[in-house]
Amino acid sequence: MTRSEIIVDLNADLGEGVGDDEAMIGVVTSANVACGFHAGDPHELLATCRAAVAAGVRIGAQVSYPDREGFGRRFMDIEPTRLTADIIYQIGALQAIARSVGADVEYVKPHGALYNSIVAHERQADAVIDAIVELGTELPLMGLPGSLSLRRAERRGIRVIAEAFADRGYRPDGTLVPRSERGAVLTDTEEIARRVVAMVERHEIRAVDGTVMRMEAESVCLHGDTPGAVEHARAVRSALAAAGIGLAAR
Amino acid sequence: MTRSEIIVDLNADLGEGVGDDEAMIGVVTSANVACGFHAGDPHELLATCRAAVAAGVRIGAQVSYPDREGFGRRFMDIEPTRLTADIIYQIGALQAIARSVGADVEYVKPHGALYNSIVAHERQADAVIDAIVELGTELPLMGLPGSLSLRRAERRGIRVIAEAFADRGYRPDGTLVPRSERGAVLTDTEEIARRVVAMVERHEIRAVDGTVMRMEAESVCLHGDTPGAVEHARAVRSALAAAGIGLAAR
Amino acid sequence: MTRSEIIVDLNADLGEGVGDDEAMIGVVTSANVACGFHAGDPHELLATCRAAVAAGVRIGAQVSYPDREGFGRRFMDIEPTRLTADIIYQIGALQAIARSVGADVEYVKPHGALYNSIVAHERQADAVIDAIVELGTELPLMGLPGSLSLRRAERRGIRVIAEAFADRGYRPDGTLVPRSERGAVLTDTEEIARRVVAMVERHEIRAVDGTVMRMEAESVCLHGDTPGAVEHARAVRSALAAAGIGLAAR
Amino acid sequence: MTRSEIIVDLNADLGEGVGDDEAMIGVVTSANVACGFHAGDPHELLATCRAAVAAGVRIGAQVSYPDREGFGRRFMDIEPTRLTADIIYQIGALQAIARSVGADVEYVKPHGALYNSIVAHERQADAVIDAIVELGTELPLMGLPGSLSLRRAERRGIRVIAEAFADRGYRPDGTLVPRSERGAVLTDTEEIARRVVAMVERHEIRAVDGTVMRMEAESVCLHGDTPGAVEHARAVRSALAAAGIGLAAR
Repeated sequence: MTRSEIIVDLNADLGEGVGDDEAMIGVVTSANVACGFHAGDPHELLATCRAAVAAGVRIGAQVSYPDREGFGRRFMDIEPTRLTADIIYQIGALQAIARSVGADVEYVKPHGALYNSIVAHERQADAVIDAIVELGTELPLMGLPGSLSLRRAERRGIRVIAEAFADRGYRPDGTLVPRSERGAVLTDTEEIARRVVAMVERHEIRAVDGTVMRMEAESVCLHGDTPGAVEHARAVRSALAAAGIGLAAR
Repeated sequence: MTRSEIIVDLNADLGEGVGDDEAMIGVVTSANVACGFHAGDPHELLATCRAAVAAGVRIGAQVSYPDREGFGRRFMDIEPTRLTADIIYQIGALQAIARSVGADVEYVKPHGALYNSIVAHERQADAVIDAIVELGTELPLMGLPGSLSLRRAERRGIRVIAEAFADRGYRPDGTLVPRSERGAVLTDTEEIARRVVAMVERHEIRAVDGTVMRMEAESVCLHGDTPGAVEHARAVRSALAAAGIGLAAR
Repeated sequence: MTRSEIIVDLNADLGEGVGDDEAMIGVVTSANVACGFHAGDPHELLATCRAAVAAGVRIGAQVSYPDREGFGRRFMDIEPTRLTADIIYQIGALQAIARSVGADVEYVKPHGALYNSIVAHERQADAVIDAIVELGTELPLMGLPGSLSLRRAERRGIRVIAEAFADRGYRPDGTLVPRSERGAVLTDTEEIARRVVAMVERHEIRAVDGTVMRMEAESVCLHGDTPGAVEHARAVRSALAAAGIGLAAR
Repeated sequence: MTRSEIIVDLNADLGEGVGDDEAMIGVVTSANVACGFHAGDPHELLATCRAAVAAGVRIGAQVSYPDREGFGRRFMDIEPTRLTADIIYQIGALQAIARSVGADVEYVKPHGALYNSIVAHERQADAVIDAIVELGTELPLMGLPGSLSLRRAERRGIRVIAEAFADRGYRPDGTLVPRSERGAVLTDTEEIARRVVAMVERHEIRAVDGTVMRMEAESVCLHGDTPGAVEHARAVRSALAAAGIGLAAR
């Protein structure tokens, strides 16, 4: 296998009205576009999709609990059939917005508390998967490698996109270090870049306790709204290029 | 021309959480389904679309200003590009919901204050039309015969569906008698039914001042949330059947 | 003790845009007025407060999670400091509305999922209590007898109003039979009325398994939006009157 | 009259989730705190009020149309009685939030499109005034000098606070140059500062056409979310101090 065959996708949250969207769109290959349930209004969605098209960036639907006040960051004990309807509604809304600028929604990435809950919450994971199945559009589901949601999605015939976080600490079991604990967020630009390269090249990542874990991820999530976010993102992109790794959404 | 060639569509607003949806779905041939901006949440939209499919009723997107508090009944001076994005978002959301139950959105009907404003407000009328054009789905636009919005839509190559109101009084210029004035709403069941038959058969309607106007409408709007609404709707349906007029969405 | 000394309060949810508010306001002595977070807009709140004043009915703030889509019926894992701010905001909004019609908010009753969660969820219970304390208005808290929230409120010096449900089944531990189980909701008007009288007179209630429990409640909650709600409510009121029990908010 | 008798108030919009609130709170003497209808959630309102208290800054209720999607910047044709209820609700909500941190709401300043509409829209102006009157709290109304709303408020016995904009161009009739026209926004820091001092000292301001107009304003509005906003605000504060003008909310 030659170097040039290694390819990775870089994704970031956009259209949320926080962070430097303009800079990030120039770094990523996939844009997780907010769908209006945790952030974003139709006009922002449209502007974000238009920018993504101009930059040749893939568009994903960043679906959320209906919780603008809490930016989708709070678990909600929603009935699965209602959650399914919420997800279908959001994907469809973004599909129309994307279509109006000549693009398509190409994957689904749950946001915030929903992202975390479906790592383990079976009924909500199934509700998200049901939405994708019922839409009949064969959209892939992006999420945490090894999570319940990805495993159950695969069993239902949905393609999954496993992702790693560039700047988040991992516990040895592959889950993220909670933000309230030490080691949750990495801030050293060089370390972040080095780590992403290692993960993409060797499928290895060092957990917070020093353990080296296996991590197969075809996409790397870059944060766009933390201090130094754009700098970190650009460093990751440069380091990947320097290592001869290709960048592309697949 | 034989009697059987006369066909008319009956439409009503559904999924708004007011009125007797279950009864109305058995009377109409087209359901104007709320899209969440003035009423309806994704789960209600889904239930309404499912009921429409079961009853063989055509689904339309009842798009609105973003005004849940005011039920979409208040004019909003929205920038046209923002209004266009709002409309695209709503249609797309309902399209996905409809698709998930094996149906399609087959027309667009603006709701409340938006319905009224685009009768004359050129920039907002164009904003609605732009949404339909940019979606690229060739959805027809339902509205008031002779209104600015329908005329401009036709010029842009969009099919229009002119509608008459079963129980609203008209002024001799074809506009509706405002609700604050005498004669705005008809309440006599027989009169309503007789009037609809006359309008469908002879394309004539009597204005509030007695003038007989020409009115070409291929759909008749039935209200679902006024006192006696279901009774009026059923009477209209029976009277049309008795007159040998066919009911169908086209 | 003479008969005339027994007094009970009758409360119901109002201003939610469901149920027959007009009829219920003539039956109750306390109105739990929605504050806009699960239902109700400022205009509805105002109309409800005005009706309460006209009927001599006490006004309470029916505070909720910020969840209009789900009518406040879904648990939300909100940070306690945010929940406290939400509650303060809602109470204040209703206080101003009430003040504008010459009335006051006289108690706080959490709604739906929040009502249930603070029966046992310590941090959220404390968040609600903090809101009342920080407002400095010494508003009593209405809730389930023996619940964590009432016990903790009392310890903080807040007056509590224990309430019983007229038409809900109880388990022998004093908690409500979940709506998904048999015996959750009573539907026999006479049984409901008889049971309320027994509970008020002898502080006894028969649980779903036949056990007779002690139940001290100074208010009885009547539902306004279930089938037969108004009939049940009126039967309760009549039965209490016939038993010589006084009705009053205290 | 000695120099020290000249006093002016500096106000800015805060709690909207845009701009550098932390910096601005150190410059102003009055904070127009968003009330949740165009921006701000209860938690942000609380944080803003707490910061205002810590900085000794007066709190005002920045009331808006119910239009989060449009940030309150779009005219809405709301029924006056509904608008009144909306305003009462917002003021009350912020009063409770302020009270919880030991402060009070001390004035009302309409936001965005509402600010502009009540300059001339009599029914909406009266709706805002009705809200203040019905609350019975004698809150002053902040607005444009000479506007219909201030004139009608005064006639109803409400104290008014006339304000000038530090960085907005004026037309010779005292209205603001619309943002779509040349001269709408001043960007030169020194010019802005000099102009404010002249206005406060001599009650004169130069209109966009060179005319010198009389402008009596007891408060100066500083923008917090434009490029250079904080720099401009600090320059205005310094220039006023250098000219011996006192800063205080009255």
